[in-house]
Amino acid sequence: MSRPRAAIVATGSELVRGERADRNGPYLAGELVRHGLDPARIEIVGDGVDDLEGAFRRAFESDLVLVSGGLGPTHDDRTVELVARVAGRELVVDEALEEKIGGVSRRIADRLGRPYSEFTGGVRKQATRPDGSISLGLAGTAPGLVLDLADTVVVVLPGPPRELQRLWPRALETEAVRRVLARAPDREHRILRFFGTPESAVAEALARAGGEGGGVDVTICAREFEIHVDLYAEASATDRGQALATSLRASLGRYLFSEDERPIGEIVLDLCRQRGLSLATAESCTGGLVASRLTAIPGSSEVYVGSVVAYADPVKQKSLGVPADLIQTHGAVSPEVAAAMATGARERLGVDVAVAVTGVAGPGGGSPEKPVGLVFAHAVGPEGEDAVRTELPGDREMIRGRATAASLHLVRRLLENRHSHA
Amino acid sequence: MSRPRAAIVATGSELVRGERADRNGPYLAGELVRHGLDPARIEIVGDGVDDLEGAFRRAFESDLVLVSGGLGPTHDDRTVELVARVAGRELVVDEALEEKIGGVSRRIADRLGRPYSEFTGGVRKQATRPDGSISLGLAGTAPGLVLDLADTVVVVLPGPPRELQRLWPRALETEAVRRVLARAPDREHRILRFFGTPESAVAEALARAGGEGGGVDVTICAREFEIHVDLYAEASATDRGQALATSLRASLGRYLFSEDERPIGEIVLDLCRQRGLSLATAESCTGGLVASRLTAIPGSSEVYVGSVVAYADPVKQKSLGVPADLIQTHGAVSPEVAAAMATGARERLGVDVAVAVTGVAGPGGGSPEKPVGLVFAHAVGPEGEDAVRTELPGDREMIRGRATAASLHLVRRLLENRHSHA
Repeated sequence: MSRPRAAIVATGSELVRGERADRNGPYLAGELVRHGLDPARIEIVGDGVDDLEGAFRRAFESDLVLVSGGLGPTHDDRTVELVARVAGRELVVDEALEEKIGGVSRRIADRLGRPYSEFTGGVRKQATRPDGSISLGLAGTAPGLVLDLADTVVVVLPGPPRELQRLWPRALETEAVRRVLARAPDREHRILRFFGTPESAVAEALARAGGEGGGVDVTICAREFEIHVDLYAEASATDRGQALATSLRASLGRYLFSEDERPIGEIVLDLCRQRGLSLATAESCTGGLVASRLTAIPGSSEVYVGSVVAYADPVKQKSLGVPADLIQTHGAVSPEVAAAMATGARERLGVDVAVAVTGVAGPGGGSPEKPVGLVFAHAVGPEGEDAVRTELPGDREMIRGRATAASLHLVRRLLENRHSHA
Repeated sequence: MSRPRAAIVATGSELVRGERADRNGPYLAGELVRHGLDPARIEIVGDGVDDLEGAFRRAFESDLVLVSGGLGPTHDDRTVELVARVAGRELVVDEALEEKIGGVSRRIADRLGRPYSEFTGGVRKQATRPDGSISLGLAGTAPGLVLDLADTVVVVLPGPPRELQRLWPRALETEAVRRVLARAPDREHRILRFFGTPESAVAEALARAGGEGGGVDVTICAREFEIHVDLYAEASATDRGQALATSLRASLGRYLFSEDERPIGEIVLDLCRQRGLSLATAESCTGGLVASRLTAIPGSSEVYVGSVVAYADPVKQKSLGVPADLIQTHGAVSPEVAAAMATGARERLGVDVAVAVTGVAGPGGGSPEKPVGLVFAHAVGPEGEDAVRTELPGDREMIRGRATAASLHLVRRLLENRHSHA
């Protein structure tokens, strides 16, 4: 049985003009792979009628079509109209949906102090669907829908990535999408996540273990400064999948930090929660990124109390108690100051565990002794401390992102070591 | 004269599986727009022969085709072979190019301690070009080329973004590409950015002003909780473009915050810098996002000193001096606590301007009086203060993102008002 084929169409003039990089295509493609499908193509098109219609015609040749964007209230949101045209379906107004969108829009109108009459045209437009389609409800004011045609199933989702990601699970629950996915033979999925080793080393370890093939597909992906390995084994090849995983664990075990999909911030919070420890951070070069990664996770307030973002040196002194002469002697970017920031955060914020990070994010501020990319992190807990010095490549955004990952993995290491070696 | 049309094809199985987001499409699309072209489509395809050939056939209907990736030495790098097939050209080995790539490959072989014989097949493959194409030389070992056909000009560039960006300027210098670009009439680009008004209200104001058409293209895009409007006017329609902009300024002027592309964080830092003011933040529900948005901007340390991320109430008391009884009386999510946090940050961090934000990000923690999405922000400067209360829709991530935008726009408003009304 051949695996069903899927096509993704991401719409939006801002995408095709390069004003924004499409995030929905990669997200949906990853989701399809996870569910056993092979995405054949991601097509990004603008709002022009001919471009959209052509893209939909091509995509409708696949078994499953995922469309993002073009569902808003304005004249250049044309997805629903053109999906209906290509599918040969009439457009109908969904009155229940109109009422729902109207309710949300009324609250927005109230908040903004605008007359609701400004919204009614857009509400009606957003409540219009191809005849016979299934509504996925709303994320914000944006609707999603599934259209089950003879040879293809079309899923239409809103363009804002957060809204798309909220409605996609509902699409997965529809009978039409489940029917296509059921035609994808089962695959066993194993996850291995590494930190601190390059993608090429993981690729080489995989090749030495025999590589992919023989019913096992492997993807190796550098993401959030970690290396994520996904092994997909056909039913006939689960032994081979297991053997590959065992081999990777053996050769790269010291870099392996997880075999599930929790982000590192959640792993750190879970480690703290399991031991009843509270957590705080002190940040210089990351400027709040470590805090924002931790507080992105619901329930983080049970463990995490806060951060001092000590961007300027006087704040390191006043809010974290870092001695001025320590900064003078060693410089703000030094292992000594990182340690003093961590200890200061632990005492001042009254927590069990604290991690601090200081570095040169660039593009300015580097020197021969302290180049752009030099980063020190220091973690301190009830039973010891741990530190890391690293020189990171890349631009300001990459250095800040990598330094954030390094800080969180340092806390993980500290808490895991205490557990296994104490 | 109609504007030439361009298509972009990004090749790579890792892109179509969602393992990595394509960066070349947005880069090249932005370059095309900058040179007056309308990219019609970005197509992302895997390494399969049929998928690639189909994508090239579709793309070759445009006036200019930009292809990235598939130029490596291995069997699944098929771009050159299939571009030649679709163009109906023979493949020829470019001996000068072979010598150049051979030189680079010999050094790589030496460094890795491998015999050069392992490389010769790949070198010959990478030195093979469609008959009549123009070589763009090398970036790394990857070659680029331009193929000038009767109805279309095809530019082939390597997949790694840095290498692609090194060879693209050379493509721009070729006679073939210059000939296509010369057919693009000049366009005037105007930017209008709004905050605090919905996309639908901007669309309606645009429609009332006469709407797009008549030589003016308009895109309206909700991004980072702002509404971004781009007006592109043909040379014959610059008056109409200006009239539309004037009309939008008149009807939505109080929401208009910028006519350039600086992000709000940069606008706030610039406003402070112009007046010699230092800035700090105090964050509860946004958990470091306001700080990370500000510190993402190079040079922010000239103005911005840091943040207290006071996630837990004791941190609000200890690090910001918020009185315990204020929290007890009004709750942590209240205008009174937001004001005390801002004042505390201003005093404790010793700055001229401080902004604080507190709210219920959800999914838990809401109540009938303080529902999920309720957010208070308070800004205080040398000549006054300003506050905002808002009830934000969406999930945790959206509420945090919107609260971040609301805080930054509040500071902007405070600093602009001081300027215009003081």
